[in-house]
Amino acid sequence: MTATPQEFMPHISELMRSIELCALITHKQGAIVSRPMSTNGEVDYDGDSHFFTRLSSGVVADIAHDPEVALMFHRTPGLLAGAPVFVHVQGRAEVIQDRARFAKHWHSSVDAWFEDGINSTDLCMLKIHAHRVAFWDGMEHGDIVLA
Amino acid sequence: MTATPQEFMPHISELMRSIELCALITHKQGAIVSRPMSTNGEVDYDGDSHFFTRLSSGVVADIAHDPEVALMFHRTPGLLAGAPVFVHVQGRAEVIQDRARFAKHWHSSVDAWFEDGINSTDLCMLKIHAHRVAFWDGMEHGDIVLA
Repeated sequence: MTATPQEFMPHISELMRSIELCALITHKQGAIVSRPMSTNGEVDYDGDSHFFTRLSSGVVADIAHDPEVALMFHRTPGLLAGAPVFVHVQGRAEVIQDRARFAKHWHSSVDAWFEDGINSTDLCMLKIHAHRVAFWDGMEHGDIVLA
Repeated sequence: MTATPQEFMPHISELMRSIELCALITHKQGAIVSRPMSTNGEVDYDGDSHFFTRLSSGVVADIAHDPEVALMFHRTPGLLAGAPVFVHVQGRAEVIQDRARFAKHWHSSVDAWFEDGINSTDLCMLKIHAHRVAFWDGMEHGDIVLA
């Protein structure tokens, strides 16, 4: 089914908040590469995701070459059951070096990787603006095209 | 670090067996698309993964256009702890329609989607042959290039 963003975004937002790590997927010379990234589970999802990484990392080089990326959020059921959940995001990535914009999106789970916080050397922020979001929650499936 | 396949494949195989669903990631007209797929957790991983899907599905169309794909396996920690695990596979996909080859790779978790088993209409098998495998297990990371 294809739903309007208004109908499904609260559900997507709730799913994403429950997932602490997602896969950030990039093009790399004809191949597809993914790696885990820490998510900020404290915010409502409005179509933009923010991640912190090193400016010298492979993911930044990949995005410079092709900014079309994807995110995959996956939650496996816990011992107390619940269905497996997947949320797939197609979007466009932007590498942000303006440190004045970092604080708003910083979250404690990134501290382990950057001990000087937003003042860490070689730090940059990635902003992924979604143009399509699909989700699978048990047998339920939805597909959202964003403006 | 870059390890030899011999050193890490048993570890990878063990990680994969604990994960029932992975993301199969394809190119689609410049974009990156992923969707969950049921894995066969009963086998040792030797660099080849097999999935069942519909011949008429979008993933088969994507592979016909560009067979270079990726898999992402993610296990979130359960209530009794353990670290989050990610296994990323880069590989080449092949669409197999020879039903004689299906039985060896069929597993019960696919039954929910194909009620006539390996005789289901519109059924095909995808074989993904890995050329690179990366894993993240807590703070441990490994990268394996396969022949």
